[in-house]
This record gives sequence, structure tokens and C-alpha cells, in this order.
Amino acid sequence: MTKHKNVLYKILSWYKKFQVSKSPQMNLVWGFFLYTVIGFLLLSIPIFHKTSVSFLDTLFISTSAISTTGLVTVSVYDSYNFFGQLIVMVLFQIGGIGYMTLTTYYLLFTTQKIGHWHKKVVGAEFTLPKTIKIRDFVKSVIVFTLIMEVIGAICFFIAFRQTGMETLKAVWFSVFHSVSAFCTAGFGLFNNSFESYSSNALINTIISVLAIAGSLGFIVITDLWYRITGKSNSVSFTTKIITYGFVILLFLGTTLVYFTEPSIRSSDSRLVESFFQAMTAMTTVGFNTISTGNLSLPILLFVTFLMYIGASPSGTAGGMKITTLTAMISILKSRLFGQKRISFLNRTIPFERLYVATSTFMMYTSIIFLFTFLLTFTERFEFQRILFEVASALGTVGLSTGITGDLSNTGKALTIVLMFIGRVGVLTFGFALLERKNKSKEESIEDDLAV
Amino acid sequence: MTKHKNVLYKILSWYKKFQVSKSPQMNLVWGFFLYTVIGFLLLSIPIFHKTSVSFLDTLFISTSAISTTGLVTVSVYDSYNFFGQLIVMVLFQIGGIGYMTLTTYYLLFTTQKIGHWHKKVVGAEFTLPKTIKIRDFVKSVIVFTLIMEVIGAICFFIAFRQTGMETLKAVWFSVFHSVSAFCTAGFGLFNNSFESYSSNALINTIISVLAIAGSLGFIVITDLWYRITGKSNSVSFTTKIITYGFVILLFLGTTLVYFTEPSIRSSDSRLVESFFQAMTAMTTVGFNTISTGNLSLPILLFVTFLMYIGASPSGTAGGMKITTLTAMISILKSRLFGQKRISFLNRTIPFERLYVATSTFMMYTSIIFLFTFLLTFTERFEFQRILFEVASALGTVGLSTGITGDLSNTGKALTIVLMFIGRVGVLTFGFALLERKNKSKEESIEDDLAV
Ligand SMILES: [K+]
Ligand SMILES: [K+]
Repeated sequence: MTKHKNVLYKILSWYKKFQVSKSPQMNLVWGFFLYTVIGFLLLSIPIFHKTSVSFLDTLFISTSAISTTGLVTVSVYDSYNFFGQLIVMVLFQIGGIGYMTLTTYYLLFTTQKIGHWHKKVVGAEFTLPKTIKIRDFVKSVIVFTLIMEVIGAICFFIAFRQTGMETLKAVWFSVFHSVSAFCTAGFGLFNNSFESYSSNALINTIISVLAIAGSLGFIVITDLWYRITGKSNSVSFTTKIITYGFVILLFLGTTLVYFTEPSIRSSDSRLVESFFQAMTAMTTVGFNTISTGNLSLPILLFVTFLMYIGASPSGTAGGMKITTLTAMISILKSRLFGQKRISFLNRTIPFERLYVATSTFMMYTSIIFLFTFLLTFTERFEFQRILFEVASALGTVGLSTGITGDLSNTGKALTIVLMFIGRVGVLTFGFALLERKNKSKEESIEDDLAV
Repeated sequence: MTKHKNVLYKILSWYKKFQVSKSPQMNLVWGFFLYTVIGFLLLSIPIFHKTSVSFLDTLFISTSAISTTGLVTVSVYDSYNFFGQLIVMVLFQIGGIGYMTLTTYYLLFTTQKIGHWHKKVVGAEFTLPKTIKIRDFVKSVIVFTLIMEVIGAICFFIAFRQTGMETLKAVWFSVFHSVSAFCTAGFGLFNNSFESYSSNALINTIISVLAIAGSLGFIVITDLWYRITGKSNSVSFTTKIITYGFVILLFLGTTLVYFTEPSIRSSDSRLVESFFQAMTAMTTVGFNTISTGNLSLPILLFVTFLMYIGASPSGTAGGMKITTLTAMISILKSRLFGQKRISFLNRTIPFERLYVATSTFMMYTSIIFLFTFLLTFTERFEFQRILFEVASALGTVGLSTGITGDLSNTGKALTIVLMFIGRVGVLTFGFALLERKNKSKEESIEDDLAV
């Protein structure tokens, strides 16, 4: 036993040294990579299987879970037994909380430059009292997450029981889908996602509330909460932008699907299904109630656009983020009106922020084009389906027109890389790639995770 | 006669007043619009027709000619007699020279703020002697154009005679195609463009030289010429960027087509055809020697990308321009390397330039997505063909997978708008739309045509 402890201690102390030698960006990349590998190893153990799963498919599921994407090449329910499914859930729970809290926590404690984040997270910009310590902040986030997931699970349980599901199965399905919805993971135990529940108002509501809360994130939600309950007179500029942007895009998406999508047959639940389609793309949760593969071309493109944008930078959602889009629109707007100062809603946006937004926009868009281009060489599917799959993987959404399982091995490998980049963040990934070349310049790249 | 002169004088003086009351951007838009309408009226006269052409198709051809796009819904050769074809040629000659010179000339003489352009065009940045007057500069451009077109026509004549074409026809075809190539108009009198000449080295060379010279433009060509002949020790930064970018993209495009395109059968002329395919997209001339509709999906996408970028801001080419791309890459590169200063090849790029580039990039990309989205509602073609058509129209390229003639009336109307915006320039168009709202701010928008 002592010997084992010794070995473990040595590995940990080696890893600690390794961490300290790397930039925060590189640490983040290695951290996600480590979790993916651990997930892969656990999911490879045959005792968790119902049927055998190939090497590449196991890596695919592990990456998909850690990145909270939810794309799968094989059915989770058909391939894994209860404990296998539990591991998948733990992985996307780690991935989900990871992005919202561990990332922040980690960056704060592996770098000495916590000034910016500290002020941003605990101080002036958001309405939390200044005295709260970082550790308490992270605790609050985790508590918030667990409370939401417990409430979600209870509601799911009621809903599933109403549909006649047996108790034990309903308990497990409730927990799994509640965590999956809040972490915007989109992993499901039904092989057709929520298509059987497309007109179930309660289930639609539960998923929507959880996914919106998760994707907007703790900071935005508490900011709005303090405003609504009157503990604060106003919300921060960032919260305002995210909320407005989210509501506008959600409204646009719902309206467009409602008035033009021919594949929705039912007229009773047409509005619910339209809302769900826009919501699932924007929050990047990735559950679906109508068949994505049957969507008409214009709607498929609009959903691709929504996945490309995503939601809030403080939540579990992927995508380019509403804040990036807003900064880009501000540049164009200010230019067209001949203004020297770049502003939005009468607030000047600092140069640094525009610089990050433009870089993110360029990097994100280039990666989508590059991978789509590569996949047109390796796959034989329609162009729009390939583009959709790429936007879904990079945005960690998990919607698919049904081609995921039929991807070539190269296609699966490229999708794994996309999900990984999508979760780590395009700029962080870029930095990590170039780390050797700019070691001395960490100072100026400290706040890149905010966009 | 006197009465007629009087009326004409009144119209002209009214137009003069109208011009003075508008911004340079609005004047440009109205100018192109006026030429389009005149072209439309002339081409509507039945004596120029071989067969009747509908109202919408006439407007389409007129816009396509003035914008030097070359997309056609009906065959020019089959629909118009010699004089009709002559009118089409005059229209794209006006369009072509227009963008390179008349635009500059016009902006210089309708605004009093010629400082920037004057310095840029005649002064320090390019290697022309400072004493040359603007009028002389414009004259030089026109003389350059005519000399190139005459030499081109003579070479074409030799080439066409070699293929056994009768003398009179060869004269007319030589003139028409020489002007069309230099103005990167892409209008042809053969109904399959240059597909019959795909392996004719002389014709490939003539078109390439004319189109590259025209698309790079007078300023870049003279700058390079002064350098090559030793009259100057160095070329300007702008010329360097444009030349490098052009050569790199041309090389990439040629290589990619050469090694991957399955639709090229002949192995003898494979390199020539690959080069031509990349060249025609980048210079936005739009002639083709291999069938665009038969290109494989990856190559079709890469050609779309090349059309999206285009070439030089000083020539007749459309597209977003290499300079815009370079500025965007600089932002990303500087960010990834953690540099505060945004530079390229060790030259700091001024903030104003980045601001224009980002706006152009956003506006250009948004217009492509918006119109593609709209066309997916009105047309029933494959997504990649619609995207290709939109990029071709906005980039004033004129390549098509063969769907132009089969577009719905709404589709044709949208394409007309795209070609018009493509020629006027996306930012100029944006300004003109918003003119009433920013009348007092002309000063800060003076140099937008340079990107
Ligand atoms: K997801
Ligand atoms: K053209």
C-alpha cells in the first residue's frame, strides 16, 4: 500500500511540475485532454458494455461527453449498461461544470495574475458583494448547478411517470436527462432524443428552463435574479447584451421555423416545436423534438447559423457567443454611420475587446470552413449536412441530420478534433498551438476567455 | 435642334445639381444605376435583337455588363446581333475602366477632400512622379487600358485565325474577348465560354495575361514595372501584399485542382486547365475552360473561396480583396502571438485600415449568407450551386454551375441586386443606404474605397 501511495504521489508531483511549466492555455488543453483520456479508458472496460464498442467510437463518446456536445456514433443506451451510462453522465457533468467554474478556478490558481478575473468575477462588473472569496464563488456555482439539477430531476420524474414509465427507470432517466439538459450536453437515453415528447408541454418546459439557465450561466442568471428581486437597480452591460441578443435570436428562430418549416405536421404543438428547435440550437443543448434530417434547407441553414452563434460566454454553451457577434456588429454599425468611436447601446467598447472578438470570429469561421472543406473530401453526404455537422461539433451542440454514425473513420477523427477545439475554445487552442513561440507574452493574453 | 439642346442642357444642369447635393457614395450608386438604366434602354430596342429578350433578362444583361460580372440568363450571341453585342461590349468597357479610373476621377472631382487619394495615387505611396496631375493620371490609365486591349486583340486574332476562324468574325471576336478579358467582364460570344480551347496554350496565355493585368490594376502593374525595369528600388507595401497574396492563392488553387479534380480528363493540358480555373476565379474574369457544373464538391468550394477573396483593390476585379484578407489575418496572427501592435511583414497596420477591413469582411460575408439564405427559399437547386452563384454574382466573377438561366424571377432579381452591390462595393452601398442618417460625417469615410 505504501508503495502504491508513493507511486501516486510521484505521478501527482510530476504533474504539478508539468502544470507550473505551462501557460494557463496549455494547462487547459492538457486538462481537457486528460479527462478525455480517463473517460476513454473507463468506457473501454468491457464490464460497462451491453455490446462491444470500437476504439474510435469510444474515443468519440468520451470526447463528446467531456465537451458536452452529445454527438454519438453509437447509441449510448444500446451500447452501455447502467454503470457505463453513469460514467458518461459523470463525464458531461465534469465537462459542464468545468467550463463554468473549474476553468475559472483553475486559471485563478495556476496563474498569479488573478487581478482581472477577480475584479470581473467578484467585483465591480457583476453585482456580487466584493468580499466573497474566489473559492466561495466557485462553491456557489457548484451549489447552484446541483440545486438546478435536483429540481430538474424531480420535475422530469413527475413528467416521465405521467407518461407511464416504471419508477426505477424514471428515476435514472430523470437524473441523467436533468444533468444532460443543464450542462447543455444533449446526451439522451432515448434513441430518437425527445421526438416522442414533441407535444409534451411539461418536458419541453423542463428542458428549456434547464438549458437556458445552464447556457446563460451563473453570472448572468444571478445578475438577472438580483435585478428581478430588487436587490440591485440595474444589470451589468454584459448581462444586458447577452439577454437581449438571446431573446432576439430566439424570437427570430421560433418565428422563422413556425412560419416556414414544412416538416412539422401537427398544428397544435407547432409553436412549442418551433420554439424548441430555436432553443436547442442557441443554448447548444442539442436535444431535438422534430427530426433534424427532415428540416427544409432554409431552416437547416438558419439552425446552422444559430449553432454558429451560440449563447453566453459565462455558461455551458458553445458557439462563437453573442458577445462576439455584438462586438462585430458594433464595428460594422459604427463604420457605416461614420463614427470613430465604436459603441453599442451608447457604450464604447474597448479596443482590446474588439481585438479579441475579431480574432475569435476569424478563427471560429476559418475552422468551420477548413473542416467542412476537409470533410467534403472524406464524406459523400450532401454539403449542407456536412456543414451542419461541423457547426454542431465545433459549437458543442450535438444536433445532427443523422450522418454521425455513418461518418468515415477520418470523418469521425476530424469531428473529435472539432468537439475538442469547441470546448477548449478556438483562441485558447490557437495559443496552445503556438505556445513555444510566445512564452514571454502571457501577460497580454490573460483575458481571452471572456469572449 | 435648339429646343432639343435646351432640354438636354436642362437635364444636365438638373443632374449636376442633384450630384452636388449627394455624398460621393450616393453619387457612385446613382452613377452606376444611371449607366445600368441607359444600357437597359438601349438593349431593349428590337433592332439589336436576333430573338426577343424579356424585360428581366435585359435588365440582367445590362447589370451584368456594367458590373463586369458576365453572368447571363440568355446567350448574348444568340440573342443580339452585331450592334447589340457592341452595346454589351461598350457597357462592360465603361464598367471596367469605370472602376479603375472613372471612380477615382469622379470621387476626386465631386469632393473637395482629395488629399488622401491625391497623396496615395500620385504621391509617396506609389512610385509615380509627384508632379503628375490627376487628369493626367486618369489619362494614363485609359491609355494603358487601350494599349493592353489592342495588343490583346491582335494576339487573339492570330490565335483565332490559327483555329481556322474566318477573318471578319475573327476581328470582331478578338476585339470583344480582349476587352472582356482585360475588364474581367467574362462575357463571351461562344456559348460554352472557352471550353473548346481548354488546351490552346496561346489563348490560355492571352486571357490570363489580360485578366491578371486588369485585375491587379494600373497602380500595381506600374509599380511592379518600375521595379522590374530598375526605375525604382522597391515596390510599395500595398503592391507587395497584393502580389504575394495573389501568387500564393493562385499557386494553392492550381495545385489543389491539379491533384484532386476528377472531372479533368486530359492529362496533357491538366496543368493549364488547373491554372486557368484558379486564375479565372481570383481575377474574377469568369471565363471557363472546364465545365464548372461538373467540378467536384471540394473544388467547387475552393473556387467559391477564391471568388470570395478576389484580387486587388486597384483593379477591375471584384471580391473582398486580398488587402482585406491580409488585414484580417494580421489581427488574428497578432492576437495569437500576444502582440498589442497589429502588424504584417513587420509593418504596423493603422487602426483605421483594420476598422475598414473588419467592416468590409463582416458586410461582405453577411450579404453572401443573407442572399444564399433567401435563394434557398426561392430556388430548388443544390445548396452548393446556390452559394456558388451568390459568391460569383457579388464577386462580379460570372462563373456558374449552369443554374443562371433556370433561376426563378425572384432569383434573377436577387442576383441583379448582388451584381450591383458587388460592383458599387459593399461599404459604399451600406453608406448610400444610410446616407440621410449621417450626412454630416462624410469626413471620416473618405478613404473607404481603398480596401
Ligand atoms: K450539446
Ligand atoms: K467577371
